[in-house]
Amino acid sequence: MKKSAYSVAVVGATGLVGGEIIAALAERAFPVGDLQLYASLHTAGEEVSCGALTVRVAPLDGAHFADTDIVFFAAGEQVSAEWITRATEAGAIAIDTSPLLAEDPDVLLVVPEVNAADVSSYADRGVIVSPDAVAIALAVALKPLHDVATITRIVVSTFEPVSGAGRAGIEELQQQTVELMSGRSIESAVFPQRIAFNALPQIGVLLAGGRTRDEQTAVSALRRLLGDAELPVSITRVRAPLFYGTAVSVNIETATPLTAADARELLRVAPGVLVQDADDEQYPTPADAVGQDATFIGRIRDDESANVLDNTRKGAAVNAVQIAERLIRDYV
Amino acid sequence: MKKSAYSVAVVGATGLVGGEIIAALAERAFPVGDLQLYASLHTAGEEVSCGALTVRVAPLDGAHFADTDIVFFAAGEQVSAEWITRATEAGAIAIDTSPLLAEDPDVLLVVPEVNAADVSSYADRGVIVSPDAVAIALAVALKPLHDVATITRIVVSTFEPVSGAGRAGIEELQQQTVELMSGRSIESAVFPQRIAFNALPQIGVLLAGGRTRDEQTAVSALRRLLGDAELPVSITRVRAPLFYGTAVSVNIETATPLTAADARELLRVAPGVLVQDADDEQYPTPADAVGQDATFIGRIRDDESANVLDNTRKGAAVNAVQIAERLIRDYV
Repeated sequence: MKKSAYSVAVVGATGLVGGEIIAALAERAFPVGDLQLYASLHTAGEEVSCGALTVRVAPLDGAHFADTDIVFFAAGEQVSAEWITRATEAGAIAIDTSPLLAEDPDVLLVVPEVNAADVSSYADRGVIVSPDAVAIALAVALKPLHDVATITRIVVSTFEPVSGAGRAGIEELQQQTVELMSGRSIESAVFPQRIAFNALPQIGVLLAGGRTRDEQTAVSALRRLLGDAELPVSITRVRAPLFYGTAVSVNIETATPLTAADARELLRVAPGVLVQDADDEQYPTPADAVGQDATFIGRIRDDESANVLDNTRKGAAVNAVQIAERLIRDYV
Repeated sequence: MKKSAYSVAVVGATGLVGGEIIAALAERAFPVGDLQLYASLHTAGEEVSCGALTVRVAPLDGAHFADTDIVFFAAGEQVSAEWITRATEAGAIAIDTSPLLAEDPDVLLVVPEVNAADVSSYADRGVIVSPDAVAIALAVALKPLHDVATITRIVVSTFEPVSGAGRAGIEELQQQTVELMSGRSIESAVFPQRIAFNALPQIGVLLAGGRTRDEQTAVSALRRLLGDAELPVSITRVRAPLFYGTAVSVNIETATPLTAADARELLRVAPGVLVQDADDEQYPTPADAVGQDATFIGRIRDDESANVLDNTRKGAAVNAVQIAERLIRDYV
C-alpha cells in the first residue's frame, strides 16, 4: 500500500487519544488525502482541524469505511470489539489503541523504534495493535539493552496520569483538587477512590490472582516486543495525581554484565530515547515529557546490590527512571 | 531507667515531626513528668499543648538537658549533629529522627515491631535512631516474611509525600497547585523542580554512583533491621504530589517458597500491620493511612514471573503495595 495520499479515519475523534492522533497526523505531515472523523452521537457534530483540513465529526453508527486505507481506533475496547472487523472487512488496516487484541499472538503489535520492520512484512489488511504508554516506554528503553546484554528479569512500578482515563479522568482530578483545596468534601466517579493528593495502586480491573488486566497486557506486550515469551516481568501499575506524562521506575537484571555507564551509552544512541542523566540533578519528570515524542530516561545507575547477587546471577542489574508521554504513533 | 514519670524534651517542637512526637506522647499517654520544647529562635515563644500540659517553646540555644531522661531530635541532621552529644553527655537518651547516625553500626536503630527487645539491652545513655517512614514500612512488612522464608532480594519504588520536607514542602505543593489551577506560572524553592501534578525521582542529595543519600540510608536501615548486612536491596525513591502518607511498591524473592496466600496469612497476624487485600478492590491508599499508626498492606500477589525464574532462584517472589503514615514512634 504505497500511495501519495491515504484515506484515513479516526474512531473516537473527540477523545483524548483521538485528538492526539489527529494532532500527530498534522505535525508529522502524514499524507492524508481524505479524513473521516467518528465519535458517539453525544459528541458528533463538532468540527475538528487536522492541518489544512477541517472535518465535521460524524456519528460512528453511519460509518462503512469503504475505500478507507487506515482506521485508527481510539474509543476504547468495546467500540474496537464492535467495529474493527467491519473496518478490516471493508479493506482497511485497523490500528487499535485499545487492549482488546493486545494479547492475541496472531495480531501484530508494533512500537516503531522496536519492530517497525514487522509492518512492511504485514499483509495489506488486518489489525495492528498500538500498546499503551507503559509498554511503549519500557520497550523503547529496554530493547537496546536486551539486544546487547540479554535481560533476564524486569521489576517495574509505574506513576500513571489521569489522562489514561480520558477527559473524564482529567476532570475528576481537577474537580477533586479544587474541592480539597477549598476544604470541601469530594466524590469519586471515574476512579475507585479519591485521586487528588493520593495514589491508587489499581489500573485496570483486578483479575483472579491479584494482577490487573492492564498489568497483564503490559507484561504480555513487553515480552512480545523483546522477543522472549517467558521473560520474568513483574509490574505494579499505580495511578498518581498527574494530568499527563507516564513515569516508570525499572530494575533490570541481565545475563551479560552491563554497567550503568554501558547502559547510558547504549541509550544515548537508541531511537526514540532521550537520556537526561547527569550528576547535577538532571533527570526527567513527567512534566518535562508532556508534548514530547521521546521516552526520557534518567537516574540510570548500577543496582546497589549487583555485587552481592549470588554467582548464578552474575549479570548486572541496572535501575532507571523513564518518562514517556506518547499516546500514539503513526505506523504506516 | 524505670520511673513513674519522665523528663522529656523535644528539639524541633514546632516542626511537623516534632508536632507528631508531641501528639504521640499525649495519645499514648506516655508518662511525661516534665516537658521541654525547643525550636529555633524564629519559632520559639509559641505555646504548645501535650495532653494536660501546655509548654512555651524555648530557643534551643539555651538548652542544657540537665536531669532530662529522653530528648527527641526532630529538627534535621544539622541540629542533631550539633546537639545530640550535649544531650547524651548530660545523661539523657537521645532519640534521633534524622539520618545523621542511621548508617553507624555502633548506634542502635529501632523499629518497635521489629527489634524492640534491643532497647531493653541498651545502656541507659546514648542514642537511638528512628529510621524514616520508608525503612519502617519495609521493615514492619518484611520482617515476618523474612523470618519464615528468608528474603533474598528486594526491589522497591516509593511514592513519598511533601510532608517529608516539612511544613515548607506542604506549603510549596499547596501554592503550586493553586497557581497551576489558576493558570499562573509557578516557582520551586523547596523541591528541585515543580512537584504539583508531577513526580520527582529524587529524595535526598545525589551521591556519586547515582544513588541518593536517602536511598542509601533506607537500604542500610532495612539490612540492619532484617539482620542481613549484604541483602540485595534496590530502591528508587520518588516524591509524589501527596501531602501525607508514604506508599511503597515492593517485589521480594525468597529462599523458601512463599505464596501470596502464605504472605497474606503471615501479615494478618504481624504486629503493626493491617492487611487490606481482597478481591473487591480493597487495597490501601496513602489517604487511608493518614493519622493511622499501622502499616497498611494490599495487592499482595504472586510474582507473575515466579514460575519462570530459573532453578537457582526457586524461591517465590511476591509483590505488594504498602502504605505507611507514621513519622515517629515512642520507643521507651
